[in-house]
Amino acid sequence: MGKDKKPARVAARLPRGFIDRAAGDLAAQRAMLESIEAVYERYGFDPLETPAIEYTEALGKFLPDEDRPNEGVFSFQDDDEQWLSLRYDLTAPLARYVAQNYDQLAKPFRSYRAGYVFRNEKPGPGRFRQFMQFDADTVGTESMVADAEICMMAADCMEELGIARGDYVVRVSSRKVLDALLETVGLGGEDQTARRLTALRAIDKLDRLGPEGVRALLGKGRRDDSGDFTRGAELEDTQIDAIMRFVGASDAFSYKPLKEAGAAEIADGELSADGTRVFANALQLEGLGQLLATSPSGREALDELGELASLVAACGYGTKRIRIDPSVVRGLEYYTGPVYEVELTFETVNEKGEKARFGSVAGGGRYDGLVARFRGQEVPATGMSIGVSRLQAALAALGRQKASAPDGPVVVLVMDREYIADYLAMAASLRSAGIRAEIYVGTSGMRAQMKYADRRAAPLVVIQGEDERAGGQVTVKDLDEGLRLSRDIEDRESWTAARPAQVAVPQENLVACVKDMLAARLAAAAGEQAGEGR
Amino acid sequence: MGKDKKPARVAARLPRGFIDRAAGDLAAQRAMLESIEAVYERYGFDPLETPAIEYTEALGKFLPDEDRPNEGVFSFQDDDEQWLSLRYDLTAPLARYVAQNYDQLAKPFRSYRAGYVFRNEKPGPGRFRQFMQFDADTVGTESMVADAEICMMAADCMEELGIARGDYVVRVSSRKVLDALLETVGLGGEDQTARRLTALRAIDKLDRLGPEGVRALLGKGRRDDSGDFTRGAELEDTQIDAIMRFVGASDAFSYKPLKEAGAAEIADGELSADGTRVFANALQLEGLGQLLATSPSGREALDELGELASLVAACGYGTKRIRIDPSVVRGLEYYTGPVYEVELTFETVNEKGEKARFGSVAGGGRYDGLVARFRGQEVPATGMSIGVSRLQAALAALGRQKASAPDGPVVVLVMDREYIADYLAMAASLRSAGIRAEIYVGTSGMRAQMKYADRRAAPLVVIQGEDERAGGQVTVKDLDEGLRLSRDIEDRESWTAARPAQVAVPQENLVACVKDMLAARLAAAAGEQAGEGR
Repeated sequence: MGKDKKPARVAARLPRGFIDRAAGDLAAQRAMLESIEAVYERYGFDPLETPAIEYTEALGKFLPDEDRPNEGVFSFQDDDEQWLSLRYDLTAPLARYVAQNYDQLAKPFRSYRAGYVFRNEKPGPGRFRQFMQFDADTVGTESMVADAEICMMAADCMEELGIARGDYVVRVSSRKVLDALLETVGLGGEDQTARRLTALRAIDKLDRLGPEGVRALLGKGRRDDSGDFTRGAELEDTQIDAIMRFVGASDAFSYKPLKEAGAAEIADGELSADGTRVFANALQLEGLGQLLATSPSGREALDELGELASLVAACGYGTKRIRIDPSVVRGLEYYTGPVYEVELTFETVNEKGEKARFGSVAGGGRYDGLVARFRGQEVPATGMSIGVSRLQAALAALGRQKASAPDGPVVVLVMDREYIADYLAMAASLRSAGIRAEIYVGTSGMRAQMKYADRRAAPLVVIQGEDERAGGQVTVKDLDEGLRLSRDIEDRESWTAARPAQVAVPQENLVACVKDMLAARLAAAAGEQAGEGR
Repeated sequence: MGKDKKPARVAARLPRGFIDRAAGDLAAQRAMLESIEAVYERYGFDPLETPAIEYTEALGKFLPDEDRPNEGVFSFQDDDEQWLSLRYDLTAPLARYVAQNYDQLAKPFRSYRAGYVFRNEKPGPGRFRQFMQFDADTVGTESMVADAEICMMAADCMEELGIARGDYVVRVSSRKVLDALLETVGLGGEDQTARRLTALRAIDKLDRLGPEGVRALLGKGRRDDSGDFTRGAELEDTQIDAIMRFVGASDAFSYKPLKEAGAAEIADGELSADGTRVFANALQLEGLGQLLATSPSGREALDELGELASLVAACGYGTKRIRIDPSVVRGLEYYTGPVYEVELTFETVNEKGEKARFGSVAGGGRYDGLVARFRGQEVPATGMSIGVSRLQAALAALGRQKASAPDGPVVVLVMDREYIADYLAMAASLRSAGIRAEIYVGTSGMRAQMKYADRRAAPLVVIQGEDERAGGQVTVKDLDEGLRLSRDIEDRESWTAARPAQVAVPQENLVACVKDMLAARLAAAAGEQAGEGR
């Protein structure tokens, strides 16, 4: 305001791809974060937080979908002309942190980090430019035990969040599997690095674009719905066919929910009901061996995945939870070994009434070279990232969000503005007793105040009019008419008798009365729930 | 990596003013946020979250210390050339949110928001470019009840955080008090807006720069330690004298901790022991009245502050908790009525061994014009912001941080890498029972593994060597030698008998044994603490 008394009006709006979040949304997110955190801590991971801003060069350029430098990242120059960026994931900052504090860390170093990341991308439905990730990483060991643990932890997280066994699966492959595949179709060698990366990114989009989209990206290229053209890897048809066969896209990526494959856990060596896609790990590895054993990368991949499969099996994790699946591709350039993807396998109905699957909600892999950017020598590392915002949408669709917004406050009505200090003191006495309470701080009359109490979902209102004040009394009124009227008559009578709609008490008994009525509401709600359960 | 096999090494470092935060720090911050949130919810405030990025024009330019546009804010251009900024506080985004959702909100609208904010400023000791604020605001009422509630809520927050009554004070003044003061020294009128703002900002720095610094900024200007020159308001000496007298700076801002003024709460109308600075509210208002009653702004200020003082008094908040104090200045241009500042009054010792006070840890005020930038009509609003990072430092100094990092995990040692799947399965069985457990995933030998367990603060290690495996046994070893050796001999004997340093059990009893030993540790630690208390 200040200098200019009549400022031009500014539009009240957010940039595309950003959202505000209200109480229910935040409570559900918090419950999720606490569940995931409980699992991460059980595995011995400790919390760590890095800032939202880093030097651009420290983050590097490791976004999956971007070919041009600086694309996809929010960047700006500091006073001293150095470039800063908002973090676009939580892995690059971890690599910087580890390199910076290498000598002080107990190694292997396990840490978890939750936080918002930022992508300067075209936003779309369910695709935001600020979203939350929750990562866990083990740095400082080449052991496949670390990878096996990440996979088991991913499975445990899903179950801790209330997703039933069979409604999710952790799919595991290796970057080396794909390297071997690309070798066998003639894309090996240093001079083909760029084409290989383009091909990998294309395969990575199978879930989103379907087989035809991937074929286009492996070939000449693809024009999307908005008319933008993405150049392809320009492979021959025979090369494309070989790749598509390998990643199992010939049956159009049609996972059946594993539940249909039988209620029992699928043990190693068994075949699933449909016999095709749901390979047990041993068979999967055998098949891979036939295809890849001629390539050095292929043999390494088989060794790694074989060890990983036997470790998770030793801990009782069958292929219903963790499965070797060569169609897993993670588009990120920096992966060097096993890659993981957590997929929700149940079907749901989208806004258009179509059946849909959520697909991938978490992923990760081994990235032995990332810390080396800073230290000059390789530091083995592996980890995963849970897409919290995406997973939250999935839990909401499942009806399994654990938390809701805080209960409404008790509202003290302002019957007579002259006595406002008295009303405020009543609210203060309720708060001192730990009860959520407000006085109506607007200037409107009774009707508006009752409407306000209703919109605030107030369980009770406190009323003191002239007569009550004269008699040293207050009235406490239960607002839950809806619940009362919804019950059948006989039931309603006994219920109303046990729990009167309003009572008048001496003012000094206000706190005790409100406590009793809130407790009675809770008891009635519990009874209600038990009744519904019959 | 990728294209370039030998990349130039990148420096592993953070930009100045940004920090990484480890487990203990994060746990303490979370405990703080939960305490503050409990108080905010008790007052009926609901959570809300806005994104970190907004349109630059939506945020406006409301930073206290900045005269030039864009200074102090991280900004960058979107694809469509529109300017975006990182939020620098949580008030401007709230104003945007309220304007954008005005018709849907139950009004008066109470909300709270915690989140990181970003300042593109020169960092210094304890001065960061990313830090956390925790705000609460009431939008849609002119009533002083809303302001009184914010002040009481601020006081309740301090006590919920473990800061004793008398160790903090909520100081209250009004922007109109200062307007009246500046009128009386001849700085009224529209043509003096810029000078008035410069003078307000100068007064706001009293706490940081002391009286001499403020005098300089009210006069010709001031050169800071780094040589930077800030232009002053260019007032005459007589004007400066009048201002300095008013804001009580003649006694060099020397608050005494209120505890010294007597253990009992200071009621309205009483004088404190030192009789000068610790005015009771009624006297403070009387003094203000004599000075300001000739100015229209002054009379408005007196009415507002008088009402606020009587409301908090009615709720039992004396001047030990909430005090009218005209030396409070909030530099923000947008304040229009009461302004509040929460100050910690106890003394502590800084890194240099000097006595120091933390000063202001929270502040706020009424800002009736901020939503009007979007809506064209005024929407009354008032709120406060707690500087979480600053307050956390204060709590640490008080030794009142409530939480610590998670306990260390039980570590399963890898005695023989051939059997690693067995060790991993032991850890998995412990985790399934809810016990925090790791296996050592590095490749080093026993000595390194024991050192690792020690650095991870592991309470127990699990050992299975060749003999134990042959006998189907595991050994569980308590690592807490330090505690054992610190006790006197007689005590140690009975203690060691009750709680052996290591036990061997059949492998199937591993989980039960670890549970028992962890429980025994907890019991011993509780006994230890009770012993210290004697």
